[in-house]
Amino acid sequence: MTQAARIGIYGLGTMGSALALNMAEQGFDVAVANREADWLPAFMSEAGDLARRLHPHETLEAFVAGLALPRIILFMIPSGAPMDAMIEAVLPLLSPGDTIIDGGNADFHATRRRNADLSARDIHFVGMGVSGGEAGARHGPSMMVGGSDHSWAQLGPILTAIAARHEGDPCAAHLGPDGAGHFVKTVHNGIEYADMQVIAEIYGLMRYGLVRAPHEIGEAFARWNAGPLRSYLTEITAELLGYRDPVTGHPAIDVIKDAAGQKGTGRWTVIEAVRLGQSASMIDAAVAARSWSSEKQTRVAIEGALGGARSALDLGEDVLERAFLAARILCYAQGFRILKAASEEYGWSLDLARIAEIWRAGCIIRSDLLDDIALAFHQDLEGGQLILAPAMASELERTIPALRRTVAAAVTGGHAAPALSAAIGWFDTMRQGRGTADLIQAQRDFFGHHGFERLGEAGSHHGPWWD
Amino acid sequence: MTQAARIGIYGLGTMGSALALNMAEQGFDVAVANREADWLPAFMSEAGDLARRLHPHETLEAFVAGLALPRIILFMIPSGAPMDAMIEAVLPLLSPGDTIIDGGNADFHATRRRNADLSARDIHFVGMGVSGGEAGARHGPSMMVGGSDHSWAQLGPILTAIAARHEGDPCAAHLGPDGAGHFVKTVHNGIEYADMQVIAEIYGLMRYGLVRAPHEIGEAFARWNAGPLRSYLTEITAELLGYRDPVTGHPAIDVIKDAAGQKGTGRWTVIEAVRLGQSASMIDAAVAARSWSSEKQTRVAIEGALGGARSALDLGEDVLERAFLAARILCYAQGFRILKAASEEYGWSLDLARIAEIWRAGCIIRSDLLDDIALAFHQDLEGGQLILAPAMASELERTIPALRRTVAAAVTGGHAAPALSAAIGWFDTMRQGRGTADLIQAQRDFFGHHGFERLGEAGSHHGPWWD
Repeated sequence: MTQAARIGIYGLGTMGSALALNMAEQGFDVAVANREADWLPAFMSEAGDLARRLHPHETLEAFVAGLALPRIILFMIPSGAPMDAMIEAVLPLLSPGDTIIDGGNADFHATRRRNADLSARDIHFVGMGVSGGEAGARHGPSMMVGGSDHSWAQLGPILTAIAARHEGDPCAAHLGPDGAGHFVKTVHNGIEYADMQVIAEIYGLMRYGLVRAPHEIGEAFARWNAGPLRSYLTEITAELLGYRDPVTGHPAIDVIKDAAGQKGTGRWTVIEAVRLGQSASMIDAAVAARSWSSEKQTRVAIEGALGGARSALDLGEDVLERAFLAARILCYAQGFRILKAASEEYGWSLDLARIAEIWRAGCIIRSDLLDDIALAFHQDLEGGQLILAPAMASELERTIPALRRTVAAAVTGGHAAPALSAAIGWFDTMRQGRGTADLIQAQRDFFGHHGFERLGEAGSHHGPWWD
Repeated sequence: MTQAARIGIYGLGTMGSALALNMAEQGFDVAVANREADWLPAFMSEAGDLARRLHPHETLEAFVAGLALPRIILFMIPSGAPMDAMIEAVLPLLSPGDTIIDGGNADFHATRRRNADLSARDIHFVGMGVSGGEAGARHGPSMMVGGSDHSWAQLGPILTAIAARHEGDPCAAHLGPDGAGHFVKTVHNGIEYADMQVIAEIYGLMRYGLVRAPHEIGEAFARWNAGPLRSYLTEITAELLGYRDPVTGHPAIDVIKDAAGQKGTGRWTVIEAVRLGQSASMIDAAVAARSWSSEKQTRVAIEGALGGARSALDLGEDVLERAFLAARILCYAQGFRILKAASEEYGWSLDLARIAEIWRAGCIIRSDLLDDIALAFHQDLEGGQLILAPAMASELERTIPALRRTVAAAVTGGHAAPALSAAIGWFDTMRQGRGTADLIQAQRDFFGHHGFERLGEAGSHHGPWWD
C-alpha cells in the first residue's frame, strides 16, 4: 500500500500540474488525479525525480482514499458549474473536518454560497486565488486564501513552503473567511487590468506621439524598471518590445491584432466596486478599453468617417515616467478602496498591509511600489485612504503635474488615454472638498422633489423653486 | 353597483395618484386602491371634478372585482420584494388573460423572472418605465412598455391617450417582450445621470475656472437652451441657478451639500453595460462621481493634505457650448449601444428610432438632439453606431475640438471633469482603427501563454518569446 498523501490535487492542467510539482519538490507527498485518467502517465514521466512524491490515482474514490486524515483536496478545474458538479461527486467520499479548495478564479459570491452549503456538513471550503501563471505556480506563486482557521491550520504549512518569497517572507496568507481569498484575487486582477492599460496608453503616446520604434520604447521601459516603476509588468513590457516577428521581420508587437481578450475578473471587479459605491474608474477604463478593442471593424469604419489622426507630442521621457508612477499609485489606491469596502460589507477584517505584502512577489502585479504601500498600511491611515499616506502623498505631489501634462497633451493630440484620464479625474474629484454635486442635487430636487441636505445642517430640505 | 372600471391603479403615492388623475382626465374610469385605505378619502377629495371617473376600493378583493374583463392593473408600489408580495396576494383573484403592470423602476432581470412565472399561468406581466416625475405623470409622461402583444392591445389605447406628445406623436410605445420596457427605462436613467454630470462639470468650470456667479452661469445655460442644446435639463439648470436661498440670501445652489444621492438605475446601467461588453464610460463616470461626492469628509481631508486649488481658465462660452454638445452626442451614442447589445442578447428587436422618438417629450432627458437621433436611426446606420450617422458625424467634427480644448484646460487647471474626459477618451479609442491593445495581447501571451490573433490571420498564435 502506498503512503497516505498529505494533500491531493485534482486537475492536472497547466496550473494544477505546476502546483503538484512545486509541492513535491518541497517534500510533500501529493496524490494526483485528473478527469481524463490517461493524462497521468505522461504527467508522471515528465515529473522525473519528483515522481516518487507523486501518487497518481485513476478514480476519484482511490484518490480520496489515498489521503491522510483530515483530508486536503485542491481542485484546479474550471470554475462555475464544473466546480459544483465536482463537489457533488466528492462529497459522499469525505469525512467531517476535511478541507476542499477551489484554486480557480471563482466569483466570490459562488464561493460564499459553496462555503455556506459545505460548512453545514462540517466540510471546510477554501476559495484560494493563485497568481503568477505557470512559472509562478511551479516555482513560487502568490496565494490569497479564504476559509476557516481549521483549514488554514491544515493548509498553511504547505502553502507557505511553496509560495514565492519577498526577502524571505512567504507570499501566502489566510486573508479571511469564505469569499475573502477569491475576492482579493479578483481585485488583484482588476489592478492588473488597469496597470496593463496604463502601460498600453503610455506605449501608444510614445509610439504614435513621439514616433519611436518599439525597441526604443522597450529601452525606455527598461530604464524605468531600474527606478520606482520597477515591476514585473514594466520588465516584461521592456523585454517583449525588443522582439521581432520571425515570419515578417517586423517588430513582434506589430503583427498582433489590437483586440484584447478578457476573462471574468476585470468585469467582476468593476461590478463589485459599483455595488459597493466605490467605482474604481481606472479599472472601469481598462475593462472598457478591452471591450472596445474587440470592435476592430467598427473602429476601422469610424476612422474612415471621422479620421484617426494623432498629433506629434512634445513630452519628455521623464514626464511620461512620472505620469506612469502617478497613475500606478492611483490605481492601487482605487483597488485598496474596493478591498476596504468589501471587508466592511462582508465582515472579513481584511489586513490591507498583509495583502500588499503577499503581492510583492510571485504575482503578476508585483512591484516595488507595493513595498511602500505595505508600509503605508502599517501606519494608521486616515479613513484607510492610501493617497493620504505621507509617502504616497509626497510621491503624488512630485508626479501629478506630469500626469496632468501627459493627459492634456494626449487629449489635445487625439491620442486615446482613457485610463490616464480616469486617474486624474478621480484625483481631482477627491482632492476638492467642495465639488459640483450640489448642482446634481438641485436638479434632482427640482424635477423629482428628492430633497437635499443643506451644508452644515442635517435633514432633508427643498429648494426655493418649490416655494 | 358601480360601473366596471377600464383599469385599476394600486398605490397612490406621488406617481400613482398623478397617473390616476391623468387617466380620469382622459375619460377613463379608473379603480383605485392603496395599501393604507385611509389615504383614499383625501385623494378623492383632491381629485375634484375628476372624482366621478375614480372608483375607490378599500380592499384588494373589491378593487379587483371592480374591473372590466380582461383586467388591467397598474401597480405603482416600491419595486423588489413588495412587488413579489403583491403578485402573490393578487394572483388568486385574477383570471387568465388579465394583465398586471409594474410601473416602478424595477431591475429588468426581476421583470423577466416575474414574466416567466406569470405567463405560465396565462397572466400577462408588463414591466413599464415611466419618466417625467410627478408633473409628467399628471400631464403627460414618457412610457416605455414591455410585455406581450395581448397586453399592449389592452393597454395601448389608455397609454397613448395619457402620454406626452411630441408634435402630436404620443411618447408611449410597446418596445418588446418581458424586460424590454424596464431595461430601456434603466438606460434612459443612465443617460440622465451622464447628462447631469456633464452639466455639473461645465457648471464647475464656469464657476471655479471662469469665476462667474451662479445666476450668470444660469444665463449662459438659458442662452444655450435656445440652440441645439435645448433640453429639459438645460432649461431647469438655467432656471434653478437663478434662485436665491431665502434664509441666507446666498445663491440657492451654494447652500446645498455637494453629496449626490442615487437609487439603483445608474448602477444597473453600468453593470449591464459591462456584462454586455459595452462599457458606457460616461455613465460609469457619472455613477462614480455621485459615489465619490458622498465621501465629503474624505474629500475635505484630501484637500487639506494634497491641496484643492483650481486655476482660472481661458475658455469662451462658445467653446463650452460646443464641448457640451459633443459630450451629449457621445453620451447618447453610448446609451444606444447598450440598448442595441441588450436587444441582441435578449432577442427584443428594439426599435432604436422609436425609443428616441418616445424620449422627445415627457421624460427627463427630452432634448432637441433626440429628434436628430430618431432621424439618424431611421436611416440604415453602419453597425448601429450613432456617431456614424452623417448628421451626428458632422456635428462631432464641429464640436470635438472644443471638447478637447475644454478637457485639456480642465485637466491642466486641476478641475475635475471625469465625464467629459470619458467622452473624449471613448471617442479617441473608437476612431482609431489601430489602437494599443496589441501590447495588452502581447503581455497576456508573455505571462499567461494566452495566445493572440495575428493581423489578417485567423487562429491563435504565440509570440517569439515562447520560441
